[in-house]
Amino acid sequence: MADYTLYYWPLPFRGAFIKSLLALADSSWDQPAPDEVKALMQDDPDSQPVPHMAPPVLVDHETDVALSQMPAILGYLARKHGLCPADPAQAALTDKLVADANDVLYEITLHNGAQMWTPEMWSNYRPRLARWMSIFEQIGQRHGLTPERGYLLGSDAPGLADVVVLNLWGVMTQKLLSLRPMLDETAPAIAGLADRMAERPEQAALLQKAQADHGDEWCGGQIEKSLRAAM
Amino acid sequence: MADYTLYYWPLPFRGAFIKSLLALADSSWDQPAPDEVKALMQDDPDSQPVPHMAPPVLVDHETDVALSQMPAILGYLARKHGLCPADPAQAALTDKLVADANDVLYEITLHNGAQMWTPEMWSNYRPRLARWMSIFEQIGQRHGLTPERGYLLGSDAPGLADVVVLNLWGVMTQKLLSLRPMLDETAPAIAGLADRMAERPEQAALLQKAQADHGDEWCGGQIEKSLRAAM
Repeated sequence: MADYTLYYWPLPFRGAFIKSLLALADSSWDQPAPDEVKALMQDDPDSQPVPHMAPPVLVDHETDVALSQMPAILGYLARKHGLCPADPAQAALTDKLVADANDVLYEITLHNGAQMWTPEMWSNYRPRLARWMSIFEQIGQRHGLTPERGYLLGSDAPGLADVVVLNLWGVMTQKLLSLRPMLDETAPAIAGLADRMAERPEQAALLQKAQADHGDEWCGGQIEKSLRAAM
Repeated sequence: MADYTLYYWPLPFRGAFIKSLLALADSSWDQPAPDEVKALMQDDPDSQPVPHMAPPVLVDHETDVALSQMPAILGYLARKHGLCPADPAQAALTDKLVADANDVLYEITLHNGAQMWTPEMWSNYRPRLARWMSIFEQIGQRHGLTPERGYLLGSDAPGLADVVVLNLWGVMTQKLLSLRPMLDETAPAIAGLADRMAERPEQAALLQKAQADHGDEWCGGQIEKSLRAAM
């Protein structure tokens, strides 16, 4: 039996952050089929393992705990597996970076596709995306990160903050290649860290599987079409 | 000197969750004027105390820590002041409830005003809002919460989860009174908990100050006008 069960849609996107952290923790997980994920989501809250609106949902089979919400799941796993700083302020900074990543994903998908991108909207948004990159870069620089070495919060080994960098900035600029020059220019230390994380065997295996299963698809749906057209 | 400085806009809204938790912790805080909040937000990330896109920003003067992002700030304060469960899974459930609250606020403001409500959109949204209420109700029921007594996660004293209930469901249905029957019907234990929390002296003082300063204004701006018109 796997250590965890992760209910999420087939597309990597938000679920990839959780899989990436599970892989870093050397944990195993099952992924139920999409119709099971949908059925669980549509259940009455009183029959759900954790009352929730939408996936991801993680079930920890060791402790029999069920959780929803990407930030809560990542925070739980990172603390359990020693993949975030022991210092409370640095742990909270990790939570802040997860919330930042969540905001960037909402913004760049126009809140999960609530609207569609136009070239003008995209052009107006680019400086804000660059500022998000600068925010991550500056946090890295304050912890000694350089394009060639280090981890985001100055640890000796990668943790949740580095998983966020890989799955936000690394994956985004690998799927939307035209954004990579902006990352290289605005956040060179983040670009380097994302590349080093992507080369780790357990992360490379996940990224290769995502590429094999989904090609260049990133957030998916009409919103990805409008994003690519606007860019 | 105050224990904390909280940079946020004058309107209570998201900032009220943090003030409410600070008050529960019996901590003091300064609130810089709106032009200072704006100036800090517009600073280069390399001169910000914590690189961030937008308030809230909290500075802890005891530890000289600066944090942004409401969920990270609430999680930090709750852990520091013993206002969330010591059990890691229950602490993570608290983080999940904060993320749920953040989602509800985004949804009901159409992502901070990215679109405007129409009566038809609002009518279509109501069942989803009721489901959010049921999700909180069911979590309370699993921890022994009743309309008359208890706290959301079964603790002997209020914590962050209860602050979330007060500031999400209590304040929302107090400012948008026509939603209170939906809460009473769908989530009676949550309604009762919100009322009991609102009666605590430190919370009553905050709520009275918000009412004196801002009247019935809730999320503010054009989006509040469109919400009230659609309802």
